[in-house]
Amino acid sequence: MIRAEEVVARCKRLATFSEDPGSTRRTFLSPPMRDCHLEISKWLTAAAAEVTVDAAGNLRGFYSAAQSGAPRLLIGSHLDTIPNAGAYDGVLGVVVAVALLEALKGRRLPFGIEVVGFSEEEGIRFGTPFIGSRALVGSLDEELLNRQDADGVSVRTAIKRFGLNPAEIPRAALADDTLAYLEFHIEQGPILESLGLPLGVVEAIAAQTRMELTFLGRANHAGTTPMHLRHDAIAAAAEWVVAVERTAQGSPDLVATVGQFTAKPGAINVIAGEVRVTLDLRHDSDEAYARVGDTLVRLAEEISERRGLTLRRRVLLNQRAVAMDPFLVEQIEEAIRKIGCQPHRMVSGAGHDAMILAEKVPAAMIFLRSPGGISHDPAESVNVADVAKALECGLQLLDQLASSSELQKRMCRA
Amino acid sequence: MIRAEEVVARCKRLATFSEDPGSTRRTFLSPPMRDCHLEISKWLTAAAAEVTVDAAGNLRGFYSAAQSGAPRLLIGSHLDTIPNAGAYDGVLGVVVAVALLEALKGRRLPFGIEVVGFSEEEGIRFGTPFIGSRALVGSLDEELLNRQDADGVSVRTAIKRFGLNPAEIPRAALADDTLAYLEFHIEQGPILESLGLPLGVVEAIAAQTRMELTFLGRANHAGTTPMHLRHDAIAAAAEWVVAVERTAQGSPDLVATVGQFTAKPGAINVIAGEVRVTLDLRHDSDEAYARVGDTLVRLAEEISERRGLTLRRRVLLNQRAVAMDPFLVEQIEEAIRKIGCQPHRMVSGAGHDAMILAEKVPAAMIFLRSPGGISHDPAESVNVADVAKALECGLQLLDQLASSSELQKRMCRA
Repeated sequence: MIRAEEVVARCKRLATFSEDPGSTRRTFLSPPMRDCHLEISKWLTAAAAEVTVDAAGNLRGFYSAAQSGAPRLLIGSHLDTIPNAGAYDGVLGVVVAVALLEALKGRRLPFGIEVVGFSEEEGIRFGTPFIGSRALVGSLDEELLNRQDADGVSVRTAIKRFGLNPAEIPRAALADDTLAYLEFHIEQGPILESLGLPLGVVEAIAAQTRMELTFLGRANHAGTTPMHLRHDAIAAAAEWVVAVERTAQGSPDLVATVGQFTAKPGAINVIAGEVRVTLDLRHDSDEAYARVGDTLVRLAEEISERRGLTLRRRVLLNQRAVAMDPFLVEQIEEAIRKIGCQPHRMVSGAGHDAMILAEKVPAAMIFLRSPGGISHDPAESVNVADVAKALECGLQLLDQLASSSELQKRMCRA
Repeated sequence: MIRAEEVVARCKRLATFSEDPGSTRRTFLSPPMRDCHLEISKWLTAAAAEVTVDAAGNLRGFYSAAQSGAPRLLIGSHLDTIPNAGAYDGVLGVVVAVALLEALKGRRLPFGIEVVGFSEEEGIRFGTPFIGSRALVGSLDEELLNRQDADGVSVRTAIKRFGLNPAEIPRAALADDTLAYLEFHIEQGPILESLGLPLGVVEAIAAQTRMELTFLGRANHAGTTPMHLRHDAIAAAAEWVVAVERTAQGSPDLVATVGQFTAKPGAINVIAGEVRVTLDLRHDSDEAYARVGDTLVRLAEEISERRGLTLRRRVLLNQRAVAMDPFLVEQIEEAIRKIGCQPHRMVSGAGHDAMILAEKVPAAMIFLRSPGGISHDPAESVNVADVAKALECGLQLLDQLASSSELQKRMCRA
């Protein structure tokens, strides 16, 4: 419990390392990220881990195994934040990993543990998320390195300005002896709270499609154009937004969001001639999700045709659902049960670094209850008792993995 | 006919004076308004009119009467435009007034003619229309002068930056010797075209209410917030927009328009926490119109309450229906008949400067047919033959007024 309190205090302390006075904002390799690295490095070093920062700006602390030449288990999350962030999204997962090393008190396991604090997951500075974890799976490519922020600074230049060498990014890739990736994260939603449970096991990260639809009507005078002669782009898009909401409400586990709605010319006395809206769709089953996506596009086409508008559409992101490793999911469920809690399997609606790591290694996630379901907001919080359960579960899981025959087999392969 | 072609060419030339490259946008005292003033001043000066720009930014050209001390007739319209405007809305009325002076070829009438090019009628820059004509009737008050545009520049500051002195606005007021106000304007609707008539006489300008509604919900994560726990401001506002359209479709002769729809934070993966929409309502009967306005506000309140949002609302304009001067309306009908056309009395769904001037002086309007009913769009047009008819009608009207005993009486009173 004291260790859990310490974890929460550390998260709050890290939240003070910010680009913005009075609120937390710590984007990719911004100056406060250096202070954040220094602070966590102190804790890692004291816990007998060897600390480095790789060329993609990820903080990495290696706690060696009982025997040299043993494989390693990665435990981590991200250290960057959105603007006006809470103290726990990402950061909690790194601080929990550090606390697990501390709780081992020097005890060595059949595998080493590498704590990873990813440099970028939110996609704020460059509009593309997962810069840190992409370096580990080898997909931090030239296109992404050349991407520029609002000030025209590229990812490559930002890396150099932080004192790192972009040419060394290939060396940030996962070691061949990596067994698996484990991530603790706040749920960022209301489900665990509604079930009265402190911890959840993520069995999949939802598929995600983002698209942009443009309704093209005809701008005209608001006072002189009879209602039946209008081709109003705002009215058409509004009809579609209502249909999106109704469709999503009728599709269990699917969420659909129209988060942008931009009207032109956007004058009080002019019928809008053009509206651009975005659609963000998440679902755990690629099929149901494709079906609903198609339905919504067809609805937009029907609405446009009936109203004499034309529709343009562009897919911005099409990320398939990513399953977590079934063996690890079972092990986590068992660990949660062993510490006296009821496990709950769930789908993560949000994307996470685990989704990227899963391309190369078995990956799994443990969710901590989010009070009020609040995240991406300064009011984001965790219960200290839930953090204590997460630490207990983590230690239990490490012990299970240390004695697991399945993991022994994997270790031979690694 | 040559003069009518010249009028159309001049309107097209003035459309090139724009804030936006490639399209026409000329808001209150923006830099291109200065070029517009210079161009029209050349024409006015050549037609023997004395040109000034008053402290509200209105261009005024005075063509003196046969005798000094005679009263004056105002003929004008506005020079500002909406974004992505056509070439004729407002501008045509000023250019026709100039062409009427030219057609007089130095001939003097028992009254002077003052051509007015109003600085602001559309309400684009400050959200409030009629800044120019309000100065003439003395209602350009402190509140309006302090109103700010999107960049925080007040009307007062905009006037100063244009090189004018806001303290002199009272001197822009209508001269005591003003007989009447006459305005030529494109119809901006499909009625004259459907009747096959070039010109119409406006007998009243519809009542007009403009309001702003803000739906305040709660921003949250688009991937982790279940549909039934959302307080989505875009979904709420969209439901209301659909209801506005349905209500207006069920109310004959009434038109309702939502022309602005602005969502915050406006991120693709964040449920919108705030949406601001505008409502523009027009009707020729004040009563029916108030009833529908109340219904729409009640609907917005119901939608907000059911969805757990709060609603803020602000009335921006509440303009009662305004009758045009019956004597002038009859004179215009007679003039239209004299030039061989059939007059058509109609209600203007659009607000016009004539509505403001009517508070202080007899006012009337002549509408020119709008091909396709298209206005507030780059495709807005006029038929050259209709412009020729408008000029012919204008000269006929000036002659009628010069010999009218009714006007003689008014001239004695003025």
